[in-house]
Amino acid sequence: MHLLDLITRKRDGGRITPDEWRAFAAGYAAGRYPDYQVSALLMAVFFRGMDADEGFALMQGMLESGGRLDFKGLGKPVIDKHSTGGVGDKTSIPLAPLLATLGVAVPMMSGRGLGHTGGTLDKLEAIPGFNTRLSLAEAKAQVERLGCALIGQTGEIAPADKKLYALRDATATVEAIPLIAASIMSKKLAEGLTGLVLDVKTGSGSFMPEFDRATQLAQTMVAIGERCGCPTVALMTSMHHPLGVACGNALEIEESLDILHGGGPADTREVTVALGAEMLVLGRLAPNHGEARRQLESAIADGSALEMFRRIVEAQGGDPRVVDDPRGVLPQAPRQSVVTAPRAGAVQTVAPRVIGRGIIALGGGRLTMEDTVDPAVGFHILVRPGQGVTRGQPLAVIYARDDAGIDAGKACLASAITIGDEDFVPPPLVSHRVTAAGVEEYGDG
Amino acid sequence: MHLLDLITRKRDGGRITPDEWRAFAAGYAAGRYPDYQVSALLMAVFFRGMDADEGFALMQGMLESGGRLDFKGLGKPVIDKHSTGGVGDKTSIPLAPLLATLGVAVPMMSGRGLGHTGGTLDKLEAIPGFNTRLSLAEAKAQVERLGCALIGQTGEIAPADKKLYALRDATATVEAIPLIAASIMSKKLAEGLTGLVLDVKTGSGSFMPEFDRATQLAQTMVAIGERCGCPTVALMTSMHHPLGVACGNALEIEESLDILHGGGPADTREVTVALGAEMLVLGRLAPNHGEARRQLESAIADGSALEMFRRIVEAQGGDPRVVDDPRGVLPQAPRQSVVTAPRAGAVQTVAPRVIGRGIIALGGGRLTMEDTVDPAVGFHILVRPGQGVTRGQPLAVIYARDDAGIDAGKACLASAITIGDEDFVPPPLVSHRVTAAGVEEYGDG
Repeated sequence: MHLLDLITRKRDGGRITPDEWRAFAAGYAAGRYPDYQVSALLMAVFFRGMDADEGFALMQGMLESGGRLDFKGLGKPVIDKHSTGGVGDKTSIPLAPLLATLGVAVPMMSGRGLGHTGGTLDKLEAIPGFNTRLSLAEAKAQVERLGCALIGQTGEIAPADKKLYALRDATATVEAIPLIAASIMSKKLAEGLTGLVLDVKTGSGSFMPEFDRATQLAQTMVAIGERCGCPTVALMTSMHHPLGVACGNALEIEESLDILHGGGPADTREVTVALGAEMLVLGRLAPNHGEARRQLESAIADGSALEMFRRIVEAQGGDPRVVDDPRGVLPQAPRQSVVTAPRAGAVQTVAPRVIGRGIIALGGGRLTMEDTVDPAVGFHILVRPGQGVTRGQPLAVIYARDDAGIDAGKACLASAITIGDEDFVPPPLVSHRVTAAGVEEYGDG
Repeated sequence: MHLLDLITRKRDGGRITPDEWRAFAAGYAAGRYPDYQVSALLMAVFFRGMDADEGFALMQGMLESGGRLDFKGLGKPVIDKHSTGGVGDKTSIPLAPLLATLGVAVPMMSGRGLGHTGGTLDKLEAIPGFNTRLSLAEAKAQVERLGCALIGQTGEIAPADKKLYALRDATATVEAIPLIAASIMSKKLAEGLTGLVLDVKTGSGSFMPEFDRATQLAQTMVAIGERCGCPTVALMTSMHHPLGVACGNALEIEESLDILHGGGPADTREVTVALGAEMLVLGRLAPNHGEARRQLESAIADGSALEMFRRIVEAQGGDPRVVDDPRGVLPQAPRQSVVTAPRAGAVQTVAPRVIGRGIIALGGGRLTMEDTVDPAVGFHILVRPGQGVTRGQPLAVIYARDDAGIDAGKACLASAITIGDEDFVPPPLVSHRVTAAGVEEYGDG
């Protein structure tokens, strides 16, 4: 197979066959094609797209380039949740122990923060000692024993995707829906799942802000999952503002624990429970979403999910006292500052990208994968778009390492949180549900 | 300047500024940008195009990345001719001595054959001893002394273009008009010209078969030349069939000498004289094309052009006896075979791409720049599209190294030359003339 022929054909609007896409993924992982040809192919795909068979075959080739988890014979549904990423999105952390408690095996493979978007691995590593670098064999053993493991993408999983993603990132070819879908699904389907729930963010703070494109991405991923025999559902959720109150690694662990203690902000709780209900229904552990929600509330109320979280932290080398005394165990920022409303009015924006960049300015995020993160810093965001505020009312708290951080945090909040006179109703938190049957407005049933 | 920003902007239909294009060319020549990013940028340009200012700035940046010839103070017009390439196109060879004889300085920089297209350097090197690898300083000295040098693109000229062209060739990004125009013009304008004549081929055997696109390329190049203060004219000439009779390196030298001796095929002669007349008029050595044609015919008739060719061959180390005894000096193919018409009728096609690939099959052309060429092999094509033939009439002669070559030649000719019952008039040999003023139908005046 000559890669130049494939580039020319795709450039001219032709089709690359499924066999060719699989051979491409295998050959690229094996180092047979130079990056300069592959990036030209990727840019041609950006302009010409791929049909469903092409995207599926690329996904298959990337999946088959690496190792896979296998839970056959476990006798439990094996279900993961994946989010396309945002600011303040910590739902993976309470979801994993909740679902494990309720009889779902959860091999949760997460990423690190990059740019304005946070990452679950960075949040977990705010817990002293917590080790996310498990091998596939270690993760499998822990899932079999406890029902859950919280790990990063090891080099064993989809190496072709790992290489291709790095190249896309350097060549402005990330934003092609078939490539995004193939990348995400090649990693998720390597987990040996019997079901997958996708949290596809829309709104200004999401990876793909346009609702139509985000929905198309959700549909593409759902179709790939179903075609692989892995029932897949996506919820379209709002990233018009950060999710919850806490934004920053240690602060988000604390909020996750609040959820497991039965408290926490209503929006974080609602997205967590909505996604968890989908997971339970996919796993046939609940007959409908109402019953699933009741199971989730009860696993919180009786403390079993919290107890499961303690066991996971312990199993992965973290300090289990974090569960009862988060502030005593998690790193604390030495400087805090409350920012108040300069005028009365209605909150117009709490811009998630600006908040995300503010966390980077405080030292708590990454511009490149080589940056290290300060787990203690971040924000508590106390208001939501549409909310009325009085002059002097607290809008947010900055958690910083030093005075320079406080100044950076103030500059960020002044630009992110705007107050005006327009009343408005913010878009719903969970707006749509995407399944193999199509796109429907979200309802609790 | 971050190349990723430029890729993203071009991808999204934005504009790269002239300063950025110049910095890109300089930086790429200096090894500052990885090929995998540059190929993504090139593919984005393929889809989004470049405006005239962008293309001009890229051309400038590539031109300025290397050395240039300077003929200031020579007191003569300095004019070159460039062809976009085809099969049997040997006009450079008689043109160079003709124009030098008539008072034009001709620093003729040519290329090698690749794919179905032949190259002037390969043809010249069929003359034993002929050295095309002159440095810029040597070429300049020879042009000043003799009025002409026939050389290859040295590493000194437009190194950014050399690197970029190799990358385009490997990534299916050759066929973008602004990139082609910038590439050709960066090399030609490095020759220190006071005028440039372009031979832009159209038809199935040309690099760009569609007439409209080829005309657009011609207009783009003419605009670049004029903007650099180098008056530029393009003729649109036919590559619906090979030019002349001889196709193959040594055979084409022989036909070139026939032209200088006052003979040769009518079509080779007509294209040579048409291009030469443009060069003389551009150099203000003739007041109009009619007078220019008379000067050219007279330089052939009185033997002065032939004498000039002898001196050029001698100056560049070649065996000057080639001028009077080409068959005694040029390498001869040991095997020949005449192919005749299998039926009576009208010649429908003499497909130049098929003939060009036939020359490669005989060993006389290149698939990659690393291939060596056999100068002796090739074809004499005795018929033209539209011509009536009787059964058994000779169509072509194959010149081959061995029996396998004869068989390959026969297979090629059987596919290239088709005979049918339809009468038709082939398109004109020189169809249009492109100047800064626009595109006009070609006439002799």
